[in-house]
Amino acid sequence: KFIKGVPDFPKKGILFQDITPILKDPAVFQYVIQNFARKHADSELNLIAGIESRGFIFGACLAMKISKGFVLVRKPGKLPGETVNASYAMEYGNLTVEIQRDAVTKGQRVLIVDDLLATGGTAAATAKLVEQLGGIVSGISFVVEITGLNGRDKLSGYDVHSMVTFD
Amino acid sequence: KFIKGVPDFPKKGILFQDITPILKDPAVFQYVIQNFARKHADSELNLIAGIESRGFIFGACLAMKISKGFVLVRKPGKLPGETVNASYAMEYGNLTVEIQRDAVTKGQRVLIVDDLLATGGTAAATAKLVEQLGGIVSGISFVVEITGLNGRDKLSGYDVHSMVTFD
Repeated sequence: KFIKGVPDFPKKGILFQDITPILKDPAVFQYVIQNFARKHADSELNLIAGIESRGFIFGACLAMKISKGFVLVRKPGKLPGETVNASYAMEYGNLTVEIQRDAVTKGQRVLIVDDLLATGGTAAATAKLVEQLGGIVSGISFVVEITGLNGRDKLSGYDVHSMVTFD
Repeated sequence: KFIKGVPDFPKKGILFQDITPILKDPAVFQYVIQNFARKHADSELNLIAGIESRGFIFGACLAMKISKGFVLVRKPGKLPGETVNASYAMEYGNLTVEIQRDAVTKGQRVLIVDDLLATGGTAAATAKLVEQLGGIVSGISFVVEITGLNGRDKLSGYDVHSMVTFD
């Protein structure tokens, strides 16, 4: 009820999952963050990495809720200072994500958060980045998972969690 | 100490204010959100509008903290469904922001949140959008304000608040 399928957005043939109704209702929003928090409260996490830009919303709120540091995963060229990036080959060209070099230090346990697991490319590239900096990916959490796109295949070996699944 | 000036980013001559150190330290991050929450706890707010994309971080966390709905202000073409947009003439062309038409209903009181007040164009366009939908701008809050760019001039008539100011 709080996730609206919007057909043909942003391109024809894509059913966009609009999560904005979750955010507009404070009780539902709190419920989602609480659900994430319960799932991860016991894990020995150091950082939460949120993927631009809806992953910033859920990731930062979770970080605040369970008192962890928050780091930003962005498209290239948007983060100041020294950065590292990782690419993932997608059907229509490469997808690149970037993180600040000092965002993660060796041995830190990092939970990756995004709103949507579709093809899994962005999350896979983010996991590669965290590991490149010496971090350990403790898990990857999504609000919504589109199971029909088999994104989990790209994330095998990781602890993947999603709150809601669609075909 | 938690806001780093990065010279010549993203363009030569611009001193970028990097707020990521705030987010990496859970205590500092909580302090910032708590400061916003104290400032706005008593106001009869309905919604918090966060401006893409660092405004998503602070806006969403504040919304969660004080139990308000959160709405997204984005660059054009990124929000599904019916949207409205507003532009602001800047030195080098127009700047446009977009919001979903059903994000704000008539008479709702909206607090606008972003990380940085520089020239004020984005925030001014956002205020125009909220009012176009019949909402009331109850205030505009920033983490950092660059006073030398006179962004407040574009926001006169609004209750503008920033936590930290730089010249």
